[in-house]
Amino acid sequence: MENKIILLGKIQNRQVTVGVIGLGYVGFPLAVNFASAGVAVIGFDTSEERVSKLIAGKNYISDVDDQLAGDLLSGKKLVPTTDFSLIKSCEAIFICVPTPLDEFRKPDMSFIKDACEKIGSNMKPGTFISLESTTYPTTTEDFVLPILKEKSGMKEGEDFWLAYSPERVDPGNKVFHTGNTPKVLGALNEDGLEIGEAIYKLAVDEVYTVSSPRVAEMVKILENTYRLVNISLVNELALLAGKMDINIWEVIDAAKTKPFGFHAFYPGPGIGGHCIPLDPFYLESIARKFNFELSMIHTAGHIDLLMAHRMTLKITSALNRQHKSINGSKILFLGVAYKPDISDDRESPALKIIDEVVKKGGGVSYHDPFIPSIKTGNGNKVQSVELNADTLEGADCVVITTNHSVFDAGFIEQHSKLIVDLRNLIREASDKVYKL
Amino acid sequence: MENKIILLGKIQNRQVTVGVIGLGYVGFPLAVNFASAGVAVIGFDTSEERVSKLIAGKNYISDVDDQLAGDLLSGKKLVPTTDFSLIKSCEAIFICVPTPLDEFRKPDMSFIKDACEKIGSNMKPGTFISLESTTYPTTTEDFVLPILKEKSGMKEGEDFWLAYSPERVDPGNKVFHTGNTPKVLGALNEDGLEIGEAIYKLAVDEVYTVSSPRVAEMVKILENTYRLVNISLVNELALLAGKMDINIWEVIDAAKTKPFGFHAFYPGPGIGGHCIPLDPFYLESIARKFNFELSMIHTAGHIDLLMAHRMTLKITSALNRQHKSINGSKILFLGVAYKPDISDDRESPALKIIDEVVKKGGGVSYHDPFIPSIKTGNGNKVQSVELNADTLEGADCVVITTNHSVFDAGFIEQHSKLIVDLRNLIREASDKVYKL
Repeated sequence: MENKIILLGKIQNRQVTVGVIGLGYVGFPLAVNFASAGVAVIGFDTSEERVSKLIAGKNYISDVDDQLAGDLLSGKKLVPTTDFSLIKSCEAIFICVPTPLDEFRKPDMSFIKDACEKIGSNMKPGTFISLESTTYPTTTEDFVLPILKEKSGMKEGEDFWLAYSPERVDPGNKVFHTGNTPKVLGALNEDGLEIGEAIYKLAVDEVYTVSSPRVAEMVKILENTYRLVNISLVNELALLAGKMDINIWEVIDAAKTKPFGFHAFYPGPGIGGHCIPLDPFYLESIARKFNFELSMIHTAGHIDLLMAHRMTLKITSALNRQHKSINGSKILFLGVAYKPDISDDRESPALKIIDEVVKKGGGVSYHDPFIPSIKTGNGNKVQSVELNADTLEGADCVVITTNHSVFDAGFIEQHSKLIVDLRNLIREASDKVYKL
Repeated sequence: MENKIILLGKIQNRQVTVGVIGLGYVGFPLAVNFASAGVAVIGFDTSEERVSKLIAGKNYISDVDDQLAGDLLSGKKLVPTTDFSLIKSCEAIFICVPTPLDEFRKPDMSFIKDACEKIGSNMKPGTFISLESTTYPTTTEDFVLPILKEKSGMKEGEDFWLAYSPERVDPGNKVFHTGNTPKVLGALNEDGLEIGEAIYKLAVDEVYTVSSPRVAEMVKILENTYRLVNISLVNELALLAGKMDINIWEVIDAAKTKPFGFHAFYPGPGIGGHCIPLDPFYLESIARKFNFELSMIHTAGHIDLLMAHRMTLKITSALNRQHKSINGSKILFLGVAYKPDISDDRESPALKIIDEVVKKGGGVSYHDPFIPSIKTGNGNKVQSVELNADTLEGADCVVITTNHSVFDAGFIEQHSKLIVDLRNLIREASDKVYKL
């Protein structure tokens, strides 16, 4: 009880020291928000490269303002480090580490495990801990809590408090960011919830509390499962529409005129990024422990797995019109980021299509204004080429894989011999333009 | 060309005579809107009962104002009839007949076929025809057009014009109705589109034109497929959440705080009504003709097919807590309409659960303020009982199947021995309250 009163007092007076573990697109903006609120922040990361960059005052997260980050770093308001023993200086710790899938598409919990072991071994009594990484429901209670207890020998609810609050970062979103997106929070008990709410309110506008960590865990998975399922649905309908000579983009635009009960999703070459292609499979995985098969996620995942292959078949069909095969053709991809106007190519469907085209003997080049080079599946590094009349005219087929807003549809159409447009950049299909 | 100019002139001067075929929840409001616009309307229906009611000035569609309908009918602005030879008096005909599924869950096109044969045999040159019934893409071009041509011996684009415009009626919606919901319209040619737009604008605020009937057909199916898939998704997640001791309703409320990229759907005992349980399967059916399997619709449909059975298992589990079986227990269902505050029980999941409970030997009664009687699967007619302390106390289990807004959660909870709440009417689960 005393621990709680002391911590709440420190939070109120902004004398609390905050530790953020994992300085990526989730942790770094959160650390910046806490530091901006006048709270001392220590940022932990295992990457020497990242920490060195930050020590040099260099921001690498596009959603964070360079000037603000530079000021907080140079003013030592935010101290980046690889030294996890400094956890003992923190009274509140936020775990923002990756939760990827392993090569068998199962949850890879190693980053959370490692972070929890480091916290458990170093934390002092009276510490609040919140997990932000997206993960399956029950993780906080059944995976994180046992490690913290074992490593620290301390008791939750007395010596420390544990909570879960899902990150909801949408990279590139110009309106909603860490500070103005409501923060869902679930803790193991009332004290943890009270402390968590108090401290999060230093960094974000609104905290929405729920009855347990598992509810908060499920919230994030529901949000991203909704997106996976709807994108897969519209991708499947797009493939059918292609066979039925129906322009799916026109259908969606018309459906959007319904003033109730409809939310538009757009087709594309597949799902990318670090959330939607992964999170639902965390739920699918834990569901098995409860003898439950999530057929919607399974089906949506299956559609997505096939998309790169189906898009490659579209390229094959387009080239076939001109009596060409992928093998031996020059194919220029426009855009390799997983969504427009960002520099992230994680899980990008463009890369998967490129790999398949390379395997089939296609000569691949690409242009992306945000991504200077990529690695193809065979390990080769490919540099982005310029987007100009020569590079377009030199390609047997131009494939539009990301609709970056700088792409000029008219110019691309004018100078290309053949286009496979997977993003509705070119409005009208024609002999030359093959649309998804 | 002359036919078109004559018809456009009649539309402009409101001297056109409109025929509406099928006076149900789609056709009757449309007929009322045309009649209100000062256009002469003939309403066709095969049901003597319906037509007699209307001739007597009685409205039976709850979304239509009784006074308005009565005035239009008594003033002969809207003339109901079973005499389809009067089609020859019409210059514009709107087909608003049912498109159900047959017992093998395949499209039942008999109502459209019958309407088209009657139109083709009776229409005069210079007639505009629009199909509003929800159906699979290609219906207008490949199913309706051949019948009209054969029966009339006339030529589309010269002697008559054919279009498709999906009905988007949402029964019980207090904000959006026929007049203020944008009308999507696709025609076989520019003339048909021009005529269609002109005439629809007499009855609705906004017409949104698309490039073909098949695009317009796909629009409606996309809208309802979106709903089927998302309701099935959340129903499946609700079943898992129940096993994981997670309150799915709390999860959805928290997910709704995300200010972008999420649209809340709520779980329930299954999908009902005349659209969502049917329309997507029209698309699934035509997809087979194009050698395409719609796996998302298939999976969503499969989840929905199992819902009534799974809900019966919930009743079994709840009774089991009190050492009772369905066989021999008295079970009171609250609400048999497929959604709140309407009197429609078509495809209602409540009826399917009732049938299964009856088969298992349960003694079934129900209360619905909008539906005075139902027929169970064994052909028995059951009357709605009163909702009072006695009827609640007399039941071994009370099942909340529809969340009509008049239902008083506190009163129901107070007087029931055991509740299975499939609609989140009672917020907290307890020993007595078993929630989906």
